Amino acid sequence: MAADPAARAGADVRMEDVVSLCARRGFVFQSSEIYGGINGFWDYGPLGVELKNNLKALWWRRVVRERDDVEGLDSSIICHPRTWEASGHVEHFGDQLVDCRACKRRFRADQLDGIEPCEAREDGTHDLTAPRAFNLMLKTFVGASEDAASVAWLRAETCQAIFNDFKRVREVSRQKIPFGIAQIGKAFRNEINPRNFTFRSREFEQAELEFFVHPGERQRWFEYWLAERVRFHRELGFGEDKLRVRPHEPQELAHYAKAAADIEFKFPFGWQEIEGVHDRGDWDLSRHSEFAGRDLSVTDEERGERFMPMVIETSVGVDRTALALLCNGLRVEALENGETRTVLGLDPRLAPIQVAVLPLSKKLAEPARRILADLRREWNAFYDESGNIGRRYRRQDEVGTPFCVTYDFDSEQDGKVTVRERDSMRQDRIETGSVAAYVRERLEGKP
Amino acid sequence: MAADPAARAGADVRMEDVVSLCARRGFVFQSSEIYGGINGFWDYGPLGVELKNNLKALWWRRVVRERDDVEGLDSSIICHPRTWEASGHVEHFGDQLVDCRACKRRFRADQLDGIEPCEAREDGTHDLTAPRAFNLMLKTFVGASEDAASVAWLRAETCQAIFNDFKRVREVSRQKIPFGIAQIGKAFRNEINPRNFTFRSREFEQAELEFFVHPGERQRWFEYWLAERVRFHRELGFGEDKLRVRPHEPQELAHYAKAAADIEFKFPFGWQEIEGVHDRGDWDLSRHSEFAGRDLSVTDEERGERFMPMVIETSVGVDRTALALLCNGLRVEALENGETRTVLGLDPRLAPIQVAVLPLSKKLAEPARRILADLRREWNAFYDESGNIGRRYRRQDEVGTPFCVTYDFDSEQDGKVTVRERDSMRQDRIETGSVAAYVRERLEGKP
Repeated sequence: MAADPAARAGADVRMEDVVSLCARRGFVFQSSEIYGGINGFWDYGPLGVELKNNLKALWWRRVVRERDDVEGLDSSIICHPRTWEASGHVEHFGDQLVDCRACKRRFRADQLDGIEPCEAREDGTHDLTAPRAFNLMLKTFVGASEDAASVAWLRAETCQAIFNDFKRVREVSRQKIPFGIAQIGKAFRNEINPRNFTFRSREFEQAELEFFVHPGERQRWFEYWLAERVRFHRELGFGEDKLRVRPHEPQELAHYAKAAADIEFKFPFGWQEIEGVHDRGDWDLSRHSEFAGRDLSVTDEERGERFMPMVIETSVGVDRTALALLCNGLRVEALENGETRTVLGLDPRLAPIQVAVLPLSKKLAEPARRILADLRREWNAFYDESGNIGRRYRRQDEVGTPFCVTYDFDSEQDGKVTVRERDSMRQDRIETGSVAAYVRERLEGKP
Repeated sequence: MAADPAARAGADVRMEDVVSLCARRGFVFQSSEIYGGINGFWDYGPLGVELKNNLKALWWRRVVRERDDVEGLDSSIICHPRTWEASGHVEHFGDQLVDCRACKRRFRADQLDGIEPCEAREDGTHDLTAPRAFNLMLKTFVGASEDAASVAWLRAETCQAIFNDFKRVREVSRQKIPFGIAQIGKAFRNEINPRNFTFRSREFEQAELEFFVHPGERQRWFEYWLAERVRFHRELGFGEDKLRVRPHEPQELAHYAKAAADIEFKFPFGWQEIEGVHDRGDWDLSRHSEFAGRDLSVTDEERGERFMPMVIETSVGVDRTALALLCNGLRVEALENGETRTVLGLDPRLAPIQVAVLPLSKKLAEPARRILADLRREWNAFYDESGNIGRRYRRQDEVGTPFCVTYDFDSEQDGKVTVRERDSMRQDRIETGSVAAYVRERLEGKP
């Protein structure tokens, strides 16, 4: 945090404050810290894993569970290597790189503007090699030998397994076009320069939907899904000033794509994509049909025709969206008494802890723990009995806990507890037996 | 299924029936099927992913959310390669392998008894090489070159990241010994002979808890966690005849381990481990202290001493347990009318679909869909309006759906629907507005 937090109250959030909160409270930190870290890999701590799980659960609920026309999938990270030949990744998924012969640093050939000066030459200019192709997929070997025949790849995107399994999933689920297949899972890219905290990392999680439509309905479904996905991000709490849609220019589109748009969030480091919505056409299914020698086209019984479905894809970066939630939520507020407080204004359903139970004294642990046990049946509830109550409230504010329940010495007599709301700091005195209903009504809109 | 299902009624489940159900209804099938599959890798289809997610959610709830003394974690699959030197995996995690020079097949040197005859020599004997060490970790390269300096490994177990992050998690969560860190995630082992469907695969999911205790309390906590974990598997529905604890013999223990026990399930292919409970001593934290040059010991303020915590580990194979659920649940029943039905007797909370809504006619879709929308707020609800109702019940029985709600032509008049229970096939006629409460009471023990 800044030396003078009061000076930060109301100002835009800075990346260093987000990173500092994440380390201090254990949301996210470098993988293998005790070994000095490993560039581009991150671990989610106790609060981070709850936040990320809540985000994934909400996506799964909206995209899969609440719909009749989307099926879930959980495929292996390593799939048959021909998959990546068909998808074009083996041939094309890479960057052009140049090395400096003097300082040995490596750069993307298309990102040479504004690079730091060479540290090995007095005039600071780099002695660059010609560009070389570098594949971004992580390679491994499956089987007993390390030769070309055993090469496999860690998936660079989760969607290719959806195309591999399209026919099987369609048959077992008895779905007809239009319908979609969705999955959440890890993907890997050997980024040259991982940067911006978890934003550009080498191991990351995607939540992807591939929605298969009739060629005549591409435009309609592209627009439908783009609107749906914007609605999802609005539901996460991203306002007009923080979220925008950037349609791709014609020259940005892949040769097979008819339309694409990025959903961008305004991070402290600028507007950046957190989700992509793409019309992938029939590129993937056609290529897999060809490479696998299996016809993946479908028969439309109403129209009496056979066709290759077109694919509308929505692809969320889960880590990027989790980071956007932290950047969007973090704020420093000036209080009336001249002090400040740090608040993480997360949507209550996404908060790592939904409710904290705070007995005013350790002597009140027993009845407070009874309330805790009741709340834990439904939510992630946290118990803290040490330190002064104001300080305990602040610790919960800072990690986004929407409700704190305080059991005090009066509670024994009047059978009531104090429920404090994070944002308004309003305190309601309510019946002990009504706490669950009170929280449920505010979290889910019903008692 | 067998040619004569009636002959199978009441008999022990056969592996081929489980595999057949999984393929037919899309629980689990080979990864990259259209490319002929890839040995040791599996994809979970629409029903399989729900089953697995429900299992993971129950574990997380029991092990993490309901406890004050366990913190969650979600670490990267690739961590600093020194981690695997410290853990001993780079040096020791492998099998001794032999090759047959004639038929080119490869075998584990310790599993030569009963192997199939050589196909290349007339007398059927293999022409075996001397045993060679083979590391089971999957190797990859992180960074721009493929040299020794860039070698990294896909984690062979999720627990090593817990040891890496032990200090950070303890500090941010303000936990004191005894406490634990838990995580669910993928791990990889380059098995020579993947087999028994998903049981022994190359990519698999673990749910691991590492519980850190004072050296004087190892025995007590080992016994505590072994009992807790058996209780968990009983809760999944594994009876006395299907689940047993097999303590390791002294000669089976790793040199640093004081005690270990396998929790075994009786699969159609025999008794096999689905979870291990291990006293790992201070091996891991001591090794990481040494290799990272960071003291991971803790101070016990009450006792006034500094010590290295001992680790009690509980390690569930998530895929194995999901497979055990399928094997445990699948049964063929003879009905009074001489027919049979296939039932997947899953615990209702774990079933992929909690409730199916089945209008008796497509004409009743609108009111049936209103009930569906209400049920979907809480559960995974499935809608099916086609085919005769008996057939639709059978399709739900076979995938373990505990409740079917049928909306019929009388429902319009009397405001009631029929709820059919999977196991008893009992049908209750209840108020349309009470369906959610009815299901909730049976799933969660409260209305």
